[in-house]
Amino acid sequence: MSYNDNIIALASPSGTGAIAVIRISGKDAISIVSKKFQSVRNKKLENQKTHTIHLGHIVDEGKIIDKVLVSIFKDPNSYTGENVAEISCHGSPYIQQQIVQLFLRNGCRSAKAGEFTLRAFLNGKMDLSQAEAVADLIASDSEAAHQIAMQQMRGGFSNEIAHLRQELLDFASLIELELDFSQEDVEFADRAQFKELLSKITELLKKLIDSFALGNVIKNGIPVAIVGEPNVGKSTLLNTLLNEERAIVSDIPGTTRDTVEDQISIGGINFRFIDTAGIRETHNKVEQIGIAKAFEKIEQARLVIYLIEASKDKKEDIKRLEQEYSDKKIVLIANKVDEANAENLLRLKNDFPSIQLISAKTGKGVEDLKQKLLKLSNAGELGKNDTIVTNNRHYDALLKALESIQKVKESMEIELSSDLMTIDIREALFHLGEITGNVTTDDLLGNIFSNFCIGK
Amino acid sequence: MSYNDNIIALASPSGTGAIAVIRISGKDAISIVSKKFQSVRNKKLENQKTHTIHLGHIVDEGKIIDKVLVSIFKDPNSYTGENVAEISCHGSPYIQQQIVQLFLRNGCRSAKAGEFTLRAFLNGKMDLSQAEAVADLIASDSEAAHQIAMQQMRGGFSNEIAHLRQELLDFASLIELELDFSQEDVEFADRAQFKELLSKITELLKKLIDSFALGNVIKNGIPVAIVGEPNVGKSTLLNTLLNEERAIVSDIPGTTRDTVEDQISIGGINFRFIDTAGIRETHNKVEQIGIAKAFEKIEQARLVIYLIEASKDKKEDIKRLEQEYSDKKIVLIANKVDEANAENLLRLKNDFPSIQLISAKTGKGVEDLKQKLLKLSNAGELGKNDTIVTNNRHYDALLKALESIQKVKESMEIELSSDLMTIDIREALFHLGEITGNVTTDDLLGNIFSNFCIGK
Repeated sequence: MSYNDNIIALASPSGTGAIAVIRISGKDAISIVSKKFQSVRNKKLENQKTHTIHLGHIVDEGKIIDKVLVSIFKDPNSYTGENVAEISCHGSPYIQQQIVQLFLRNGCRSAKAGEFTLRAFLNGKMDLSQAEAVADLIASDSEAAHQIAMQQMRGGFSNEIAHLRQELLDFASLIELELDFSQEDVEFADRAQFKELLSKITELLKKLIDSFALGNVIKNGIPVAIVGEPNVGKSTLLNTLLNEERAIVSDIPGTTRDTVEDQISIGGINFRFIDTAGIRETHNKVEQIGIAKAFEKIEQARLVIYLIEASKDKKEDIKRLEQEYSDKKIVLIANKVDEANAENLLRLKNDFPSIQLISAKTGKGVEDLKQKLLKLSNAGELGKNDTIVTNNRHYDALLKALESIQKVKESMEIELSSDLMTIDIREALFHLGEITGNVTTDDLLGNIFSNFCIGK
Repeated sequence: MSYNDNIIALASPSGTGAIAVIRISGKDAISIVSKKFQSVRNKKLENQKTHTIHLGHIVDEGKIIDKVLVSIFKDPNSYTGENVAEISCHGSPYIQQQIVQLFLRNGCRSAKAGEFTLRAFLNGKMDLSQAEAVADLIASDSEAAHQIAMQQMRGGFSNEIAHLRQELLDFASLIELELDFSQEDVEFADRAQFKELLSKITELLKKLIDSFALGNVIKNGIPVAIVGEPNVGKSTLLNTLLNEERAIVSDIPGTTRDTVEDQISIGGINFRFIDTAGIRETHNKVEQIGIAKAFEKIEQARLVIYLIEASKDKKEDIKRLEQEYSDKKIVLIANKVDEANAENLLRLKNDFPSIQLISAKTGKGVEDLKQKLLKLSNAGELGKNDTIVTNNRHYDALLKALESIQKVKESMEIELSSDLMTIDIREALFHLGEITGNVTTDDLLGNIFSNFCIGK
């Protein structure tokens, strides 16, 4: 379907470039552009085939605004499922503004954030979780985050959910039918099959819910706290890690401006390094506050790098930390190996077989450390076709759906009457439908698409 | 023609947007993309028509990088005149980088600044002054600058020059032919016609040279100095001028970031306001330096706004300033009219009929002031189809061409021998050819295109 109002927005990043792309979608998108477009070959845009490109000038009242290429996409074969015209103009902000303003005066209104994708969803071009993945895809800044978004955009788990939801819906109908015949004690829905379906759904929901913890840290970066006494080389280590990665990406324009000071990508996974104050016993109040904060940050971290000097005996400290944070994955590191003697190193390896020997200054052992971080992050679990949930909204809906399904299961076990079971099934259907967009409210859609950038 | 090496660059502005466009040009542009592109309809890109768009995935070794649209342009019907593929991908810097890197590993090299346009020039898609106008067009941030660049890109004066140059070349050939028959005293070239041509060329060159002064200030903004005693309201006036304009453009995203603090557009012309220290007699050394600088800035300005308080008698000061800067266009303004009495205002108008009465605080009279600035800027001379030279390189070449043409004229008047005249004609041809690109050197091209942005 096509909406009657036509929306326009700059689709390429704002600023100056060689070219910029302005996107118009709606029933009259093509004819609106056609009125202000003079083809160099005297072609009328309306008469052109879908997926074709046309060279000409955007002209307003005899004044040429720019020489442009106009791409034509016809309903339903476009991103939004409506008629779409994309104007590729010269990339000056002045020209972009002139063209957008021209069409705002001539039949278009400004698109709201995410409105092109909202229309794609409303026109059935994608389900809701796919639409959400578009925003994730654009925001992704590591290989893993990109891969998860890509997977979700291509259907990912929403296909599975939609499929199982349909089966559940079929059973729900049968069970509701039984209610009409409640006097006669018939069973249209095969209880054994239904139980099997509930198990299958439970299994999928649990798998998806479990994936969220990993998915979430992959999306936001895995938090790693670097702790240790003052002067043990925490900042040197961080700089070494950062610099090595920086060197690799520095010849690609446009990447550095988006990197966070202390975030690096190892094997396609983002790690967020949390710098902490050096931990030691002190009577200085200010320093005590800093140290208390360091312990707080350890709590937030998924991985903890504990740094000691290779030449010092820190057996007791290490044991205390390991006891205190037995629930954390701790990476023990002995730094400054270049300054330690062989005897010390042997003793360390003897006491703590897993300890990593490095020199943050020379870079020795740092590559091994990176591989260890990658392994401990469990990101290896992220297979190519695994379904990973990263979206808070999906996670909520999955938890609620699971809860309802559990209730249905319990009801069956205690042979509760069908009418009570039906309520729980309906609730599960509702929450599953929320993910794929079978169930939507204006509020929900508003929330989702307002997080998009304009032009998408 | 097509170059054997294939160049790639991001063509849209860098940063995050809904979409980004990556451009590849060269003999193998389409087949290179085709190898990493899986059409959703199983189409092979090489077999598609020019100016068509294709939906599919960019895939590298089984891994999907993005869902994209690929636009195909076939030699010679493209911007560069070569085979061109444009990939419209999701607008994350991560994806842009992944796709560019993929093709850098698979048959492309990074395009240098302006290299797409350089190829367009070398392949005869545009002349040199048109190519230069592309960069001007992208950089233009006011209606006037945009209009001049657009005019030049569409051929503008280079058509005229190319035409007259051809006529001159024809005469040169005839005159050189005469040299072969110098013993026989023949005249193949009609001297009367030749003289007429020289006049026509002289007239055009002079017109273009004259347009440079205006063209240059339009391109860079017309410098306006605001001077007056301390506290007379200079900054208030500037803010009023700025704010009024800001309000008009504030609802267009992406424009403010490119505006300079004290630059505003009036009637499509940019005015650069130069704030000066208040001018008064002082013994304070630091203040004296500030005031000396104010006078320097007056020298640089094209227009001078001299601000006085309406309630004060500044007859002598005004007369002194007008004498001192008799070569400048001075706009006399009496500010704070709301605080002055009718008698004062009458006296002012009597002494200085051209004085503008304003209140910078309330905005009264500010619109009239803007119209006066616009009128005094002479930008009204800028008719829709006027040819305006803004490029220093063109200006230089025009001056040199004019000089040579003058010499030819003089030679004719004193009936100098044809062989000496020929040297001057050749020189004029050379300089005229420099503008249109009939005459080029690698150095010249390198200089011109290195000022472009990458991707154009």
